[in-house]
Amino acid sequence: MQYSIFGQKFLKQTGIGQLMDDLSNPPPGSCLLGGGNPAFIPELIEIWREIVSKQIESGSIDKILGGYESPSGILELRETVASILSDESGTKISKDQIAITNGSQNAFYFLLNFFSGNFGNDQRKKILFPILPEYIGYTDQTLEPDSFLSFVPEIREIEDRYYKYFISLENFDSIPSWKKEAGCICVSRPTNPTGNVITDQELEFLIERANNVGIPLLVDNAYGFPFPNVVFGKNSFIHRSGMIQGFSLSKLGLPGVRTGFVVGDSETITLLHRANSVINLTSANPGQFIALDLFRSGRWKELCEKIILPFYLKKSIFTQEAILNNWSSQIDYKIHQSEGAFFLWVWVRNLSLSVSDLYPILKEAGVIVVPGKTFFPGTDSNWSHREECFRLSFAREDKEIEEGVLKIGKVLEKFLK
Amino acid sequence: MQYSIFGQKFLKQTGIGQLMDDLSNPPPGSCLLGGGNPAFIPELIEIWREIVSKQIESGSIDKILGGYESPSGILELRETVASILSDESGTKISKDQIAITNGSQNAFYFLLNFFSGNFGNDQRKKILFPILPEYIGYTDQTLEPDSFLSFVPEIREIEDRYYKYFISLENFDSIPSWKKEAGCICVSRPTNPTGNVITDQELEFLIERANNVGIPLLVDNAYGFPFPNVVFGKNSFIHRSGMIQGFSLSKLGLPGVRTGFVVGDSETITLLHRANSVINLTSANPGQFIALDLFRSGRWKELCEKIILPFYLKKSIFTQEAILNNWSSQIDYKIHQSEGAFFLWVWVRNLSLSVSDLYPILKEAGVIVVPGKTFFPGTDSNWSHREECFRLSFAREDKEIEEGVLKIGKVLEKFLK
Repeated sequence: MQYSIFGQKFLKQTGIGQLMDDLSNPPPGSCLLGGGNPAFIPELIEIWREIVSKQIESGSIDKILGGYESPSGILELRETVASILSDESGTKISKDQIAITNGSQNAFYFLLNFFSGNFGNDQRKKILFPILPEYIGYTDQTLEPDSFLSFVPEIREIEDRYYKYFISLENFDSIPSWKKEAGCICVSRPTNPTGNVITDQELEFLIERANNVGIPLLVDNAYGFPFPNVVFGKNSFIHRSGMIQGFSLSKLGLPGVRTGFVVGDSETITLLHRANSVINLTSANPGQFIALDLFRSGRWKELCEKIILPFYLKKSIFTQEAILNNWSSQIDYKIHQSEGAFFLWVWVRNLSLSVSDLYPILKEAGVIVVPGKTFFPGTDSNWSHREECFRLSFAREDKEIEEGVLKIGKVLEKFLK
Repeated sequence: MQYSIFGQKFLKQTGIGQLMDDLSNPPPGSCLLGGGNPAFIPELIEIWREIVSKQIESGSIDKILGGYESPSGILELRETVASILSDESGTKISKDQIAITNGSQNAFYFLLNFFSGNFGNDQRKKILFPILPEYIGYTDQTLEPDSFLSFVPEIREIEDRYYKYFISLENFDSIPSWKKEAGCICVSRPTNPTGNVITDQELEFLIERANNVGIPLLVDNAYGFPFPNVVFGKNSFIHRSGMIQGFSLSKLGLPGVRTGFVVGDSETITLLHRANSVINLTSANPGQFIALDLFRSGRWKELCEKIILPFYLKKSIFTQEAILNNWSSQIDYKIHQSEGAFFLWVWVRNLSLSVSDLYPILKEAGVIVVPGKTFFPGTDSNWSHREECFRLSFAREDKEIEEGVLKIGKVLEKFLK
C-alpha cells in the first residue's frame, strides 16, 4: 500500500507507541515501574462509583451515552472550569477561554501543530523546549519533521544523592536564534519524566520571553495545578496573557475517559473547538459529566489536597527510601529532587552499559522502567547524560515498588565500571 | 497570534463545525430535523443502563474509568469484532485487522490523510468520491488543500415523486485521469446525507477499479452493516482484500462514548494503532466496555434487526407520508429513495431562492434542516442541483417531524417560481 508522508511516519514504531505497548503487555509477574497509570486510590474509586450510580438513578446517563454534546464541550462545564481557574490563579478567565478535548494528549496535538511547522510564505517555525528532559508524548506529534528546538538544563547537584534541573537563563540570551525559529515555548509542570516543577520565577521568565517575541507559552499541567495538584513544594498556579495551559482528568484517577481541558486566549480556543469538530466530531461525554458533578460540588479540591497529594507524596518518600536504604553505595546514582507527578528520575553514572542497553536486562530481571533517552528531543546525541537516566513510576503498591527497586539495584551493581 | 497553515484553516468556520454548532444551540421550540443524533429508543436505553449497572456491581467500572487500555484497543473486543465481521461477511478477518478509535470521524481523519496529500517526490494524491453527494464531515479533514476528486452521479427519476443516484460507471472510463490522481476511493453506505445504499454491484465495481489501480476502497458503514444495520433494502455486507471499512457505535445509540472500529489489511491497521497512540494516547474505555458486553453476548444482532431497523424504517415511511400528504402539489419536489440511515434527502426545483438562502428563512419559521450545498465537495459550482437539495433527519418524535414537514411545505410554497 502507498501512504502519504503523514502515513509513512507510522510505518515505524513511535516512542509513545512503544511505551504504551510495553505497558499494556508486560511480562507476567513483572514489577511495573514504567507506567503512567495513576494509582487506584480507594476513596476516588468510591466517588466515581457514586457519581455514575447517581447518573443511572436520575436518568441523566441516557443523554450521556445517547447524545452528542457540542464540539466545544458542555457549556456548564466550561463555565465551571473557568470559574475554578479564575479562583485558583487570581486572574479573570471566561468560558470562552476554555476548550474541552478528548484528553490533553489530543489537545497538544492540535496546539503543537497550530504553533509549529509551515506558516506559509516559506516560513517554518519550531517548538522550543526551554528545559529538557521533556514529555515523550510530544515527540511524534508534529506534522512537519525537525520541529523541535531545545535547551539543555543547568544541573545542580544537591547533597550526596540528589540533583535538580534548572532552566539555563543564559541560553535565552546567548543563543538568540530561537527568537526567529520558535513558534511557541512548551513546558510540562510538574515535568513528566523528572518530577521537576520549574519555579514560579522560571515560569515568569518564560512568560516574559514568550511575550517579548509574541509567541505563546504552552504549559502542560497534567500532574499539576489546580488538579490533581500533585506538587510537593510551594509553587503556584499562574495564568497570564499569552499562556495556553492544558489540564487533564487522567491523573485525577480517570485516564479511561480521555477528557482534557485547555485555557487560552479566546481566538485559540475557538480554533480548538473547530479542530475538534473536524477531527473528532465532538468529545466523549462520560468524562465531561463526571467532571461536571465533581467540579460543581466543589469536592475536587478536598480530594486533591487531602487524598491525592498526600497519597503520592507518601509513595515518593517510600520509593526514595527504598532506593537510599537498599542500593549499594558503590552505585554512582543521584535522584532528581521529587517535586511532583508520579515519577522518580534517576541518574546513574559510571556504568559499563547505557540505560537503553540495560532496559531489556531489567525487563528480563522482572522490572519495567522507562529509559531516559527518548525524553531528550533535539539534543546532541553525544551528550552522555541522555543514556544515564531512567524514569520510575511510584504509582504502584509498596510491595511492587520495593521489589522493583531491589531488582534494579542488583542489575546496576553488575554493570559498575 | 501567528498560526501555522494547519491552524489557519480553523480561523474560519468549517462545514461540520457550523452544523454541530447549529445543532447544539437551536432556537427554542424549533423542529430539529437537521441533526445526526440517533433517536432515544427505550429498549436500547434500558440495555445501556443494565450494562453500566452491572459494571458498577461487578467492580469492573474501576478499571474502565481508572485505567489506560492499549492504544490498539481492548484485545478481546478486537477479537470479538473480527469474529462478527467474519461471520457477517463470510470472509476470514483476524484481530490484527481491527483497529478501535475514538469514533469513526477520527478514524477517517487518519485514513483520509494516510491516502491523500503529499506522498513525497513531488507526488500528490487525492480522495476520489465516486458518487456525490457525500458526508460533509470529510470535507475539512485533509491536511493538504484541494484533496478531493469527485464524480457527479447519474440521476434516475422514479415515478412521480422519487429518484435515486447511481454511480456513473462511464465516468470511470471516460475520465481516466483519476487513476493517476487518486490515493483512495471513498464512499459511505448508506450515504449520509441521501440515505442511498449503493448496490452490491456498484460496490463490486468500485472494489475492482480500486484493486486495478492498487489503491484502497474506504467504505464508511456508520449507519450500515453489520451494525446498526439501518438498511431497508436487500444489499449485503461485503468485505474483500483492498477494502478498509469503518464502523461506529454512534448510530447504535451511543454517540456520547465516541467509539469506532476499522477493518483493513493488518499493515494499515498497525498504522492506525500507532497514529492513535501519538494523537490520542489511547481510546476512551466506556464505549469499548459497553461494546464488549453487547457484542460478546450476541444481543447486538437481535437489537439491530428487531428494534433499531424497524424503528427507523417506520420513521422513514412516516416522514415520507407526511410530505406526500401535506405538501402542495404545486411544489416541484422529489424524495431520494429512502434505503437506509436516518435521513430523507429532498430535491426541489423551480424555486425563486436557493436552498442555502432558504435556510435562515426556515430557521425563522421554526425548523432546522441541512442545506445540500456542502455535501458536494469538488463539483462544478454552476451545477444548480447543489442548491436544490436538503437533508431532513427523521430520528425525532413523530409530532416534531410532522410539524417540521408542514412548516417546510409552507415556506416552499411561498417561493415557487
